[in-house]
Amino acid sequence: MLPVSNPHPQFSITRASHVVLGVTDLERSRDFYRDVVGLVVTEETDTTIYLRGLEEAAHHSLVLERSAAAHAHRIGLRVRSDEDIHAAERHFAAAGIEHRRVERDHQGPTLQFRDPVGTLMEFTSSMDVVDRKMQNYDEYRAGFPQRLDHYQVVTYDVQTATEFWTGLGMRISEYTATDGSDELWGSWMEVKGNTHDLVFTNGRGPRLHHFAYAVPDGSSLLHAADVAGAMGFGDEIDRGPGRHGISNALFLYLRDPDQHRVELFNTHYQFIDLETPPIRWDISNARRAQLWGMPASNRWFFEASEFPGEAVQDPLLTATPQTLETYLGLH
Amino acid sequence: MLPVSNPHPQFSITRASHVVLGVTDLERSRDFYRDVVGLVVTEETDTTIYLRGLEEAAHHSLVLERSAAAHAHRIGLRVRSDEDIHAAERHFAAAGIEHRRVERDHQGPTLQFRDPVGTLMEFTSSMDVVDRKMQNYDEYRAGFPQRLDHYQVVTYDVQTATEFWTGLGMRISEYTATDGSDELWGSWMEVKGNTHDLVFTNGRGPRLHHFAYAVPDGSSLLHAADVAGAMGFGDEIDRGPGRHGISNALFLYLRDPDQHRVELFNTHYQFIDLETPPIRWDISNARRAQLWGMPASNRWFFEASEFPGEAVQDPLLTATPQTLETYLGLH
Amino acid sequence: MLPVSNPHPQFSITRASHVVLGVTDLERSRDFYRDVVGLVVTEETDTTIYLRGLEEAAHHSLVLERSAAAHAHRIGLRVRSDEDIHAAERHFAAAGIEHRRVERDHQGPTLQFRDPVGTLMEFTSSMDVVDRKMQNYDEYRAGFPQRLDHYQVVTYDVQTATEFWTGLGMRISEYTATDGSDELWGSWMEVKGNTHDLVFTNGRGPRLHHFAYAVPDGSSLLHAADVAGAMGFGDEIDRGPGRHGISNALFLYLRDPDQHRVELFNTHYQFIDLETPPIRWDISNARRAQLWGMPASNRWFFEASEFPGEAVQDPLLTATPQTLETYLGLH
Amino acid sequence: MLPVSNPHPQFSITRASHVVLGVTDLERSRDFYRDVVGLVVTEETDTTIYLRGLEEAAHHSLVLERSAAAHAHRIGLRVRSDEDIHAAERHFAAAGIEHRRVERDHQGPTLQFRDPVGTLMEFTSSMDVVDRKMQNYDEYRAGFPQRLDHYQVVTYDVQTATEFWTGLGMRISEYTATDGSDELWGSWMEVKGNTHDLVFTNGRGPRLHHFAYAVPDGSSLLHAADVAGAMGFGDEIDRGPGRHGISNALFLYLRDPDQHRVELFNTHYQFIDLETPPIRWDISNARRAQLWGMPASNRWFFEASEFPGEAVQDPLLTATPQTLETYLGLH
Repeated sequence: MLPVSNPHPQFSITRASHVVLGVTDLERSRDFYRDVVGLVVTEETDTTIYLRGLEEAAHHSLVLERSAAAHAHRIGLRVRSDEDIHAAERHFAAAGIEHRRVERDHQGPTLQFRDPVGTLMEFTSSMDVVDRKMQNYDEYRAGFPQRLDHYQVVTYDVQTATEFWTGLGMRISEYTATDGSDELWGSWMEVKGNTHDLVFTNGRGPRLHHFAYAVPDGSSLLHAADVAGAMGFGDEIDRGPGRHGISNALFLYLRDPDQHRVELFNTHYQFIDLETPPIRWDISNARRAQLWGMPASNRWFFEASEFPGEAVQDPLLTATPQTLETYLGLH
Repeated sequence: MLPVSNPHPQFSITRASHVVLGVTDLERSRDFYRDVVGLVVTEETDTTIYLRGLEEAAHHSLVLERSAAAHAHRIGLRVRSDEDIHAAERHFAAAGIEHRRVERDHQGPTLQFRDPVGTLMEFTSSMDVVDRKMQNYDEYRAGFPQRLDHYQVVTYDVQTATEFWTGLGMRISEYTATDGSDELWGSWMEVKGNTHDLVFTNGRGPRLHHFAYAVPDGSSLLHAADVAGAMGFGDEIDRGPGRHGISNALFLYLRDPDQHRVELFNTHYQFIDLETPPIRWDISNARRAQLWGMPASNRWFFEASEFPGEAVQDPLLTATPQTLETYLGLH
Repeated sequence: MLPVSNPHPQFSITRASHVVLGVTDLERSRDFYRDVVGLVVTEETDTTIYLRGLEEAAHHSLVLERSAAAHAHRIGLRVRSDEDIHAAERHFAAAGIEHRRVERDHQGPTLQFRDPVGTLMEFTSSMDVVDRKMQNYDEYRAGFPQRLDHYQVVTYDVQTATEFWTGLGMRISEYTATDGSDELWGSWMEVKGNTHDLVFTNGRGPRLHHFAYAVPDGSSLLHAADVAGAMGFGDEIDRGPGRHGISNALFLYLRDPDQHRVELFNTHYQFIDLETPPIRWDISNARRAQLWGMPASNRWFFEASEFPGEAVQDPLLTATPQTLETYLGLH
Repeated sequence: MLPVSNPHPQFSITRASHVVLGVTDLERSRDFYRDVVGLVVTEETDTTIYLRGLEEAAHHSLVLERSAAAHAHRIGLRVRSDEDIHAAERHFAAAGIEHRRVERDHQGPTLQFRDPVGTLMEFTSSMDVVDRKMQNYDEYRAGFPQRLDHYQVVTYDVQTATEFWTGLGMRISEYTATDGSDELWGSWMEVKGNTHDLVFTNGRGPRLHHFAYAVPDGSSLLHAADVAGAMGFGDEIDRGPGRHGISNALFLYLRDPDQHRVELFNTHYQFIDLETPPIRWDISNARRAQLWGMPASNRWFFEASEFPGEAVQDPLLTATPQTLETYLGLH
């Protein structure tokens, strides 16, 4: 059964907020995100570098932490207000979700937790306000990334993950399912009125597949690819430029020096009206993955960033070899 | 005083929904919006033509009504659900806002009203669902318009209009004010998390200055201009391409055969977090109107579509001739 | 030895002019080139369809001929004037190049010949003049193709082909060679002042690898890909979008219903000054093929259109398996 | 009478090569061309700065000379080889054209002269070769200017100028003329196979109206405008973005700190075949100047850079006030 969004959630999630990555060489990763992606460096310490998109007034949407291992440390979502943090706390306590308050520099009240499929997450209700750089066009570089938009997480149990998050008010805009059944292979869920803020896809998990920044247009994507090529990261494009069937995004995927994956994309559509049903894609439909062009690399399909201390489990749903070939677009 | 958004409005407005225009030649106007703008025709009757943007699943976002006079008949906003229509009715009754239920083809419950500055509006909670055309790329034409985004209304009293709409939960993202004072000359208000859904600017009003469709990128704007030129509407571009300081929109304004004005634009920024303050622009700051390039034509500044039966009033605030010159970017 | 351009050729070649393809279903191929590529149909007969790019004032740059087999019938080049046709005739007679005058509808004097590696070609000095459609922006479709630009031919003997064509005044802008030697693997030759009009690459030949149309910008390429996807030709993109190291072209390759290959590209650079040396690329340098992104499909590397009656020969130069892997970008 | 290109000129001109500007503040002008336009600085001395476009392998296409007055010092064209310099010398001597050999750093043999309408020019046959930067995408800035393309000169006698240059082999691609007569108001002449290398328009002259760099696409133009706005040069856009009827160029015009004018443009069409007639535009046809959008500023029409020591003369042809209004697009 396709889960339905809870119309009266206990608290209000507003958007994807910030991703925290463990990186093994802080300077090298900063250079990548600043020069090859085009993010703005807000602040640097000996152990941590904070970056943001060009239009973002929040202190950070990407945090790089010096680390021995290249893990995805956690992904962050915004809630509306401090009161929503309290409400989330009460709800998690009642629902038996492991959680705790944490202190985070430059963030307001912050609640860390793991969702039922082991994704390490945190909610926060505010951040230090900094200047929007969107009109500093002379500082635009590479992909002109404007703002963090969404996450994709690989999970061993899409159904459970989807039930949890729709229970918190997220709404499914699109989903993939086994042909002729309701077995969920992927769910695209949103809170901010476009196609997705949080995506779960079937596979060995929990692992962070990618986080995504919105760019102004297709030419930004092409320029990002050109800059990546010029700076020696041309081979680190493991998919795209291409157009997803799902969400209609024009995309480019890049791997950072620790092989974390970042997406640059354009042109999600609006998804607000309640009468609009989610779009279903059979997993045998290759247009799901790309409307045109060559299939993704195997790297794109099978590699992702683990979370520290979270054991990766095999997916509950498995495909026949034939289905898998179709799924990978190898038909 | 700058009005502050009511954090707990009595009902939930979700987005700009549909504009209804009186046009004197139905076929000529349809051809314009289909061929020069690129909208999709959903349905035609003898008296009415319904159009929508390429990605829109709602039956219409533009309605053309055969009419003796070229008026803006009304502008529509969406509310979340039928219950919000009831709540709006109760609220308007209590607040003394003139309103009435109306039957509209292809729309759910619909409430018509005039706001305190005479803008003719209607709320609806749903529409007939139709196919999104966003992946029918072979049907893309002209500006590739994706979805209706916002309205700009000229009013004789920006302060009153702004207080009304912030009272219904809209939030000010940017505003213009007399230098060194709090006299509001324009307010950009949003409900859907980007810079504006409804804008009021100072002038003879109420008049509809324009309605705006979002396009995928800057090259769509340029192609729209090229198509307009090829089809004999090159002179009907009364502003742009250019970049507004306010909202950072890359814009192109076109006049239709009845001189109604439609904007095509790209790259609004996201405005969701409560800690982010609105941006203030002094009216003497010409970058407000365009970050670069030539000033708007006088037509753009002084012409707009009247609402039927609503007397146009002179603005309460007036500028010195010097200020006006700066305002018009004629410095 | 790298051949050097003859500074005083016996006649003046000016540009790539027209390609003639045998197609097995005339209507289906016309629909592809008109709707998926965006070419203009100049004229149709029962057996032949003539098309051209949007800016072209010449009657045709692509000719589709109803045929039992999907061959490349011939490729055409322009010479400056009728006198150049006579001079070419004299030169070919003296040089022992098989040639003959032919009558071609809508073309001036035309000389058919085969070059020393078996490429079927013809020179013509003029064509019927038709309207340039470049300002009919309302008729622009798909990739907005402006003009035929160049050909790439697979040959078993790049050295011989290159010596022949440089002897006729073509100039090498870039070339590929075995690492540390002068063994030519590919030569990019030009007459009109940008990087290439005629390219020969090493492989089983003679076969036409592709012909290429110039498009206005990167967004045209992306729109062409979107339209291809929407019209069911998404899988017929066998390479790109991507950026070649050689020539710096931003490219998209599409296969037509008979598997002839057409390239859409943008941003060749200018190559006019005599003091500028050609650029050499070792075949082990994968950036040669793409500055970024995923390698071409095997289809792109190994499939091409044969010429009728011309036996395909194995290349004189062969690569070690390791070199071949690098050549294919599979490192 | 419209002059016809000399099919056998005494020497071979190949392209627009380099413009030399007197500037009053060397550093300020360098910063403008590097940061607001995006040119590459090749070399700096105390008195002279050399710049080039991203793809150019020639040492310079723009030379800034420290100067008390903001004059256009001269404009340069390339000839094919040293022998063409000799041939030009012989031809000018026979034809009574004032000329002299000059030594120019980084240039081969160079011949300075004034054409019959007083334009200060020089021919050179080669330059020092430097690296093409076109694949250093990480160094791309502002408008991504690729190469110098053409000049526009205001002259008091278009007929005489056109006769001189067509006599040297230039070919008219488009021209403007008084309605119903052959009075030449402007001539667009080319040698390199696209629409123009040298343009003369009617007015007070000789003055350099602008020099133009080709950019990769429309989005480069928009980004250049955004960067200009961000760096305080937004008001120095005195025309565009817009589309000329003549030449079909998508254009943006910027004034430098001394008010010299530089154009960034895209999408000239190819003009090679001899059977293609030039395009005629009546001066009353406003589409000549722009296919769409607002007319140029008066600054664009009436301001231009004088040459040192060359008296500016009133044009031989004058327009009626009505014609002038149309000419200016003020209809």
